[in-house]
Amino acid sequence: MDAADAKLLAERVAAGEVPPDELVRALQVPPVTDLGFATVDNQRGARTGTSEIIYGAGKTKEQIAGIVTSMLEACQRRVLVTRLDGEKAAGVSELLAAGGIAMEYDPVARLGMVGDAKEPDGLGTVLVVCAGTSDLPVAEEAARTLEYLGNRVDRAYDVGVAGIHRLLACERRIRDARVIVAVAGMEGALASVVAGLASCPVIAVPTSVGYGASLGGVAALLAMLNSCANGVSVVNIDNGFGAAYQASLINHMK
Amino acid sequence: MDAADAKLLAERVAAGEVPPDELVRALQVPPVTDLGFATVDNQRGARTGTSEIIYGAGKTKEQIAGIVTSMLEACQRRVLVTRLDGEKAAGVSELLAAGGIAMEYDPVARLGMVGDAKEPDGLGTVLVVCAGTSDLPVAEEAARTLEYLGNRVDRAYDVGVAGIHRLLACERRIRDARVIVAVAGMEGALASVVAGLASCPVIAVPTSVGYGASLGGVAALLAMLNSCANGVSVVNIDNGFGAAYQASLINHMK
Amino acid sequence: MDAADAKLLAERVAAGEVPPDELVRALQVPPVTDLGFATVDNQRGARTGTSEIIYGAGKTKEQIAGIVTSMLEACQRRVLVTRLDGEKAAGVSELLAAGGIAMEYDPVARLGMVGDAKEPDGLGTVLVVCAGTSDLPVAEEAARTLEYLGNRVDRAYDVGVAGIHRLLACERRIRDARVIVAVAGMEGALASVVAGLASCPVIAVPTSVGYGASLGGVAALLAMLNSCANGVSVVNIDNGFGAAYQASLINHMK
Amino acid sequence: MDAADAKLLAERVAAGEVPPDELVRALQVPPVTDLGFATVDNQRGARTGTSEIIYGAGKTKEQIAGIVTSMLEACQRRVLVTRLDGEKAAGVSELLAAGGIAMEYDPVARLGMVGDAKEPDGLGTVLVVCAGTSDLPVAEEAARTLEYLGNRVDRAYDVGVAGIHRLLACERRIRDARVIVAVAGMEGALASVVAGLASCPVIAVPTSVGYGASLGGVAALLAMLNSCANGVSVVNIDNGFGAAYQASLINHMK
Amino acid sequence: MDAADAKLLAERVAAGEVPPDELVRALQVPPVTDLGFATVDNQRGARTGTSEIIYGAGKTKEQIAGIVTSMLEACQRRVLVTRLDGEKAAGVSELLAAGGIAMEYDPVARLGMVGDAKEPDGLGTVLVVCAGTSDLPVAEEAARTLEYLGNRVDRAYDVGVAGIHRLLACERRIRDARVIVAVAGMEGALASVVAGLASCPVIAVPTSVGYGASLGGVAALLAMLNSCANGVSVVNIDNGFGAAYQASLINHMK
Amino acid sequence: MDAADAKLLAERVAAGEVPPDELVRALQVPPVTDLGFATVDNQRGARTGTSEIIYGAGKTKEQIAGIVTSMLEACQRRVLVTRLDGEKAAGVSELLAAGGIAMEYDPVARLGMVGDAKEPDGLGTVLVVCAGTSDLPVAEEAARTLEYLGNRVDRAYDVGVAGIHRLLACERRIRDARVIVAVAGMEGALASVVAGLASCPVIAVPTSVGYGASLGGVAALLAMLNSCANGVSVVNIDNGFGAAYQASLINHMK
Amino acid sequence: MDAADAKLLAERVAAGEVPPDELVRALQVPPVTDLGFATVDNQRGARTGTSEIIYGAGKTKEQIAGIVTSMLEACQRRVLVTRLDGEKAAGVSELLAAGGIAMEYDPVARLGMVGDAKEPDGLGTVLVVCAGTSDLPVAEEAARTLEYLGNRVDRAYDVGVAGIHRLLACERRIRDARVIVAVAGMEGALASVVAGLASCPVIAVPTSVGYGASLGGVAALLAMLNSCANGVSVVNIDNGFGAAYQASLINHMK
Amino acid sequence: MDAADAKLLAERVAAGEVPPDELVRALQVPPVTDLGFATVDNQRGARTGTSEIIYGAGKTKEQIAGIVTSMLEACQRRVLVTRLDGEKAAGVSELLAAGGIAMEYDPVARLGMVGDAKEPDGLGTVLVVCAGTSDLPVAEEAARTLEYLGNRVDRAYDVGVAGIHRLLACERRIRDARVIVAVAGMEGALASVVAGLASCPVIAVPTSVGYGASLGGVAALLAMLNSCANGVSVVNIDNGFGAAYQASLINHMK
Repeated sequence: MDAADAKLLAERVAAGEVPPDELVRALQVPPVTDLGFATVDNQRGARTGTSEIIYGAGKTKEQIAGIVTSMLEACQRRVLVTRLDGEKAAGVSELLAAGGIAMEYDPVARLGMVGDAKEPDGLGTVLVVCAGTSDLPVAEEAARTLEYLGNRVDRAYDVGVAGIHRLLACERRIRDARVIVAVAGMEGALASVVAGLASCPVIAVPTSVGYGASLGGVAALLAMLNSCANGVSVVNIDNGFGAAYQASLINHMK
Repeated sequence: MDAADAKLLAERVAAGEVPPDELVRALQVPPVTDLGFATVDNQRGARTGTSEIIYGAGKTKEQIAGIVTSMLEACQRRVLVTRLDGEKAAGVSELLAAGGIAMEYDPVARLGMVGDAKEPDGLGTVLVVCAGTSDLPVAEEAARTLEYLGNRVDRAYDVGVAGIHRLLACERRIRDARVIVAVAGMEGALASVVAGLASCPVIAVPTSVGYGASLGGVAALLAMLNSCANGVSVVNIDNGFGAAYQASLINHMK
Repeated sequence: MDAADAKLLAERVAAGEVPPDELVRALQVPPVTDLGFATVDNQRGARTGTSEIIYGAGKTKEQIAGIVTSMLEACQRRVLVTRLDGEKAAGVSELLAAGGIAMEYDPVARLGMVGDAKEPDGLGTVLVVCAGTSDLPVAEEAARTLEYLGNRVDRAYDVGVAGIHRLLACERRIRDARVIVAVAGMEGALASVVAGLASCPVIAVPTSVGYGASLGGVAALLAMLNSCANGVSVVNIDNGFGAAYQASLINHMK
Repeated sequence: MDAADAKLLAERVAAGEVPPDELVRALQVPPVTDLGFATVDNQRGARTGTSEIIYGAGKTKEQIAGIVTSMLEACQRRVLVTRLDGEKAAGVSELLAAGGIAMEYDPVARLGMVGDAKEPDGLGTVLVVCAGTSDLPVAEEAARTLEYLGNRVDRAYDVGVAGIHRLLACERRIRDARVIVAVAGMEGALASVVAGLASCPVIAVPTSVGYGASLGGVAALLAMLNSCANGVSVVNIDNGFGAAYQASLINHMK
Repeated sequence: MDAADAKLLAERVAAGEVPPDELVRALQVPPVTDLGFATVDNQRGARTGTSEIIYGAGKTKEQIAGIVTSMLEACQRRVLVTRLDGEKAAGVSELLAAGGIAMEYDPVARLGMVGDAKEPDGLGTVLVVCAGTSDLPVAEEAARTLEYLGNRVDRAYDVGVAGIHRLLACERRIRDARVIVAVAGMEGALASVVAGLASCPVIAVPTSVGYGASLGGVAALLAMLNSCANGVSVVNIDNGFGAAYQASLINHMK
Repeated sequence: MDAADAKLLAERVAAGEVPPDELVRALQVPPVTDLGFATVDNQRGARTGTSEIIYGAGKTKEQIAGIVTSMLEACQRRVLVTRLDGEKAAGVSELLAAGGIAMEYDPVARLGMVGDAKEPDGLGTVLVVCAGTSDLPVAEEAARTLEYLGNRVDRAYDVGVAGIHRLLACERRIRDARVIVAVAGMEGALASVVAGLASCPVIAVPTSVGYGASLGGVAALLAMLNSCANGVSVVNIDNGFGAAYQASLINHMK
Repeated sequence: MDAADAKLLAERVAAGEVPPDELVRALQVPPVTDLGFATVDNQRGARTGTSEIIYGAGKTKEQIAGIVTSMLEACQRRVLVTRLDGEKAAGVSELLAAGGIAMEYDPVARLGMVGDAKEPDGLGTVLVVCAGTSDLPVAEEAARTLEYLGNRVDRAYDVGVAGIHRLLACERRIRDARVIVAVAGMEGALASVVAGLASCPVIAVPTSVGYGASLGGVAALLAMLNSCANGVSVVNIDNGFGAAYQASLINHMK
Repeated sequence: MDAADAKLLAERVAAGEVPPDELVRALQVPPVTDLGFATVDNQRGARTGTSEIIYGAGKTKEQIAGIVTSMLEACQRRVLVTRLDGEKAAGVSELLAAGGIAMEYDPVARLGMVGDAKEPDGLGTVLVVCAGTSDLPVAEEAARTLEYLGNRVDRAYDVGVAGIHRLLACERRIRDARVIVAVAGMEGALASVVAGLASCPVIAVPTSVGYGASLGGVAALLAMLNSCANGVSVVNIDNGFGAAYQASLINHMK
């Protein structure tokens, strides 16, 4: 259970809306749940502010469903599964449904989401910009994750530097953002230009979009790491989730 | 025939449990068996302590079945086939069954095993730790190989450094191990932290689990080679077998 | 002139402490100053919150001194020069001294600083952690830059993961930080472990410290990009300045 | 002798300004001059429009002086030596002076030039833009080579994308250029933004300026090859000369 | 609408062949069309001379059809879609046909083309040479794009340097070309040899054709960037389109 | 027609076994045949001793069949097609059969062969050694090509260095060989050990066999290039054909 | 203080050879000593069996001398400094001498050693083999470290695979070793051949010895990671120390 | 002693020109001489046809002189030292002179040679071609080594493909050669063009000559490995010696 949910639960118990037993049960959750194939970290929410998130790639549908179930049993109210392809998502949904658990699936962002959406409680708006339409899956992974983590999101898609006036037209939105996630493949120049216009942190996400010498996104990654503009930090190739996570951390700082 | 099996056979002949002819037959095994497509090394067991192990990738099912048969004919009691995918395993099993040979197959570890399991004769316990559930196939390749080679195995899975208390909770098991196999993808930090807590050798196995810039496991490989902790050595990406082999060597030292 | 300095100047004029002419002069600064070899961006402070910073590598001492002078003439109160080696720093100091300008030089961080130190006005404390003593130059580049940009800095040096209890001993300082800059070479595992303990953003800086296969810092860079912990973003190899800049942005968000 | 010089010579002979013998001598130049260590290509001017240019790196001063002398004897009116460091330039100058030949040396561009400057005969202006002051040596190698090859050059230096208004302020010059040479290190984004604003060809030159992950210019090189803007082609890292050569070819097309 | 089409339309209105309303409509096209998943740059034709071209990879058929339709509505007369595989092309065609729009598809060049072919208006001929038959898809992407952009094209295919007399037999065509696009995989030597014979610019395109150590075209890319011949610039691996675009720019210079 | 075949034809004409017209027809073959998609080099046999060989990858079955037919029409007696997968081979065979041409196909070596086998006319024996059974396809590509080019071949397969006595058992065959082709993946050590035992040239072929860090054969390639033994030269990864070609050249030297 | 030294001290106190106070002082050593630039890990000996070892590269002589002094004050009896070049070693020696501390320096192995040599207490002999004389500095770093850590060492130098009989002549020494450290540059084949002959663990150390394509030792590193022989694990390039450390761990297992 | 020298000695003994004792002494040479730092392989000449050659890099002058002396004592008549820089050569000469041994040094090829030159006994001529004057040191390393090993050498330098007629002018020399060593940096195209003109084996040597993206010779190396021409094999970057060695082997085949 993450910090905000814990606080909410305590308040509701205090207000008599929830029986004290539920709080007791939450307090009795062990630090980890050992599933054999997984050691679920039940204290991550308390420790880092956000509960564990499930990386879907390389796990079987049975493993994912098992971890989701374990997390709900450990009183977590929401579970996010990343890198979940369509076929596996269907399998996981079926397994969860058998246990009475519903999972929403976003095929563009390849995210599975269990539990109610969180109310936006970030301080400002996070702007997600992307260079081209082909970058959309990664941009949406970031945008949907941000919404899941309680942020208001502004999307400006297909505003790459080849037509700089498209980006300049967003100048006010760039200035109004509290954090920016800049998603681009090919030469990844978007991050530098945006950072030169912004006074807030820019989290850059290189994508694997491009011809041969993009080397699967390494070209954009290197470009972003070498940005001549200040205020840019970078996450892994195609890692929209990772950028969203850090952007959300920043947007929730008080 | 490896050293331990040879000794066992000699003892059983001496005890009259096995007719001397079998020993004679073993002594008459030629140094190599030439199958045209393969030159089976019948003396490897005597020379290195463990008989030849079959690398299944890139071989046809006929070739694998032929080598297995040849090895059994050369008086080897157990045969291990690594990197054997499910479909090929089925083919090999069918071919071997025609010759009255049974092969057990582990689909997670992708191992084929012929012959009875060996009794654990290693001096201590080998601990296999892995960082995440997605690393399981490699971890199991290591664990099953260790058991095949006569070691007691302790498994601690999904104890990556993002939740360090999961690992610290294993501190006693880390201290009690005689050798540790540390399996991790992504940034591979597990190996360094484990080695900092251990007083025994750590064999690190990088896995190809991760986003784009993991470069198919190269990121974890480099990390493990550059470990700031002492006592770490490294094997190839996803090479659970290789780590197990060396761990077993160490665990059998007297 | 950056935003904070502009506000301060306006307040002092309003209070009668400074004659209005100085404000007028500041308002008349042109957007850029063209020095032939450089096009100084005088509006960067207003646009991004921090005035232009001079990258010292690859510039002659005459060029650096010229840009510093131009910036001061454009009413900037402080100038930072990064990547300034000792010999060149001496040359720049001499040239500036001839114009009555004093430059402080930090030989560990390789930074030149002109103008009075800024009062700390960040909201919290930025923790700079580094893995080993050999990472000190990069860590100090970060720490001194952070102080220059108005942040309180907490330093925890030589707390690499090979002796994890050294890091766990910092757990409270990690929790108390508003932003963390994690500096490490070799396998760069520090960033992941710190992020697993923290609930604030972690900016990771790979360093070029290490044996052969560190590939000049690429090993640590890849490790940090592949961190299994959430909340980590990464800057260029040895780029203590870049991490400090973004950490300062985050620490000044209200 | 290149095409333009040949034409000029013929005209001057026709006009009686030059004795016919000199034309005869030019006609009798053999296709190559064999110096043992070099096989000078005396027909390159006739074949490609520009005489051979001497790559100075890895040659001794004696070799360079020998080739220069041979080329002048083969009736070439100008000789350019690239990648000539200061010390070697002094040595070459001394050797040539002994033979009555003067060489001009530009220490920023590291170019040696023998013979009178050519009159500008290109159709338009070539714009050389560079991202930062540290890129100046490469930009000047391009600019000086362009002038040597008979082009009018417009220089816009230190207009990197971190302060995009500096570049937008050049928009008219970008539109007026017939060809653009865009020089940038770090993330190399300049090329894409310029190409998005231009209707003429852009020749991009990555430079080796930058922190660790610039990998000696590979980051900028990859970025430029992956430009999302159309009309960009790329030359080798730090190869200002190569870009200038092709830009000149284009600028002389009628 | 690109410059040439705009001029043509104005002339036809002036000649009374087209009602003035069509010109008015063209003038009223907004700078961008925001489709949510794409921000179509309607001014690119006016700004750079050629309207936006659609990069088909990574886009859905619905997105591509949407952008094509939007561009036609913004008065563009021709639309080119690159990197369009056969299956997706069929889907796009079907969607467009429903709106009464016909798209021609070239399966070798993987190009979709909407609108009438442009009359050749380039000044000279562009020669496309390729080293081997396996390079044909890339060479044809270049050749067809060149024709689409209004250039006369001369094709010399399978003239790699292993049989140099095949290339020398093209010497006259090399001399007659105004620009050359040189396409080669493997060791990419074609570009250097052609440039040594030509007096016009050579745009080199590395292809991903080759055995293992071609590294997906990187070998040819590096070779072309390191060409010992002057007058060569390079585009991305397999980027026949990019080379054609720049060759067309050069061929239309007056 | 290659040199040996030309000589044979002339002798048979002289002996009255073949009508003179066939010789005339051979003399009238043009230097190249232009098929549009291919420029067949009909003089390569005369020039280099061996007629053109068709690289099958990346060509359509129609293109391959067309080139084969053209070569036979140009009086070549044998045609070799490399890198021909099974499905394409079937297509080519069908097309050729329609023209009355038979093609033999070897599915292990992926070679298509048209025309009668050549009588062995090399001076000695070429030894093909390979490290493991998984290297067989590459070893057979070499062995079959060698036989096609008129060499006697000795095969020693699966004699990798992990069981050095298998290789030492071949010592006499190593000494008796006139040239050796050494094929190995993984660490490629076979080449060095063989060269240390041999007094003839060793052509090393790295294969793409191996775990993750073999990097698709790059590990073995680098190892072979860095051989501490003298007398080793290297061809491309998996390029059994290339090694065979050069080995045959050497074996035919008189 | 490491485990063996602690035990020795306790025994000597019990025997009355040492006053109890020294034991008391050792028990009062704090877990870490904070020197500002370093956080010395005083418990590493107790935790991992061996006290902290100082990585000399990137540290100043003052820092090294400070850490050495601190470790001695924390009752450690021996201190090892690795990667210490000659000039810095002289500086450190001078600083330590002022405090009455003597440091031995080995210029080949680049090791500084403080305190008496440890008596060999390992169970067997560690064999250090190296391929060539140029690998000697790394081999000696391993051998001297092994001796420092209490191992008997057998050295077999310059026995690379190009002359395999030199290695076969060591076959008995290979069989008699309890652990083997195999040091090689270039193609690194030594490790595979040795492991094929041995029945004990082989720790392989790639060195940076070699021509261009050794890529600073990466060729040997990759080769060793891809060893076709079982029982090999690998440490970083030129990391003789790291191999020695792990070999010593194994050699001390009971 | 290599085979030719052994035969010569035996003949001279038989002819009474040399006392039998010298033959006896030669027969009594032990297989290896153990110098501690080196294990000299005295049988290499008998085994591979050429005695051991000393790789000078990374060895001290004392070590080199020691090995030379040992080899002469083991009845070898000539010793070659490669990669010997000028300063070290002077040191070695001085040490050898003290023992009455003279060493010739070639500063361009960086070779030290002890003993009389061998009479050319190769069957034909080896042609060494190089692309540019900057490749001379590597080309001379090859040429001088070839002469040392008893080959007649034809040198054609600075005939790179940018001026293809320079190379075509060598066509006869290319045809007359028995083996060709092709040396080139930059894009390394020379090897392919030469192989297309030759009917003998071509050994290609990439050099580290070039701008940034030559990556220290990797560009040329990859190009040569990917040669579209048949009959090319490759040695390490800058390894003129290695190419010469194999060329000599081929040239001595009977």
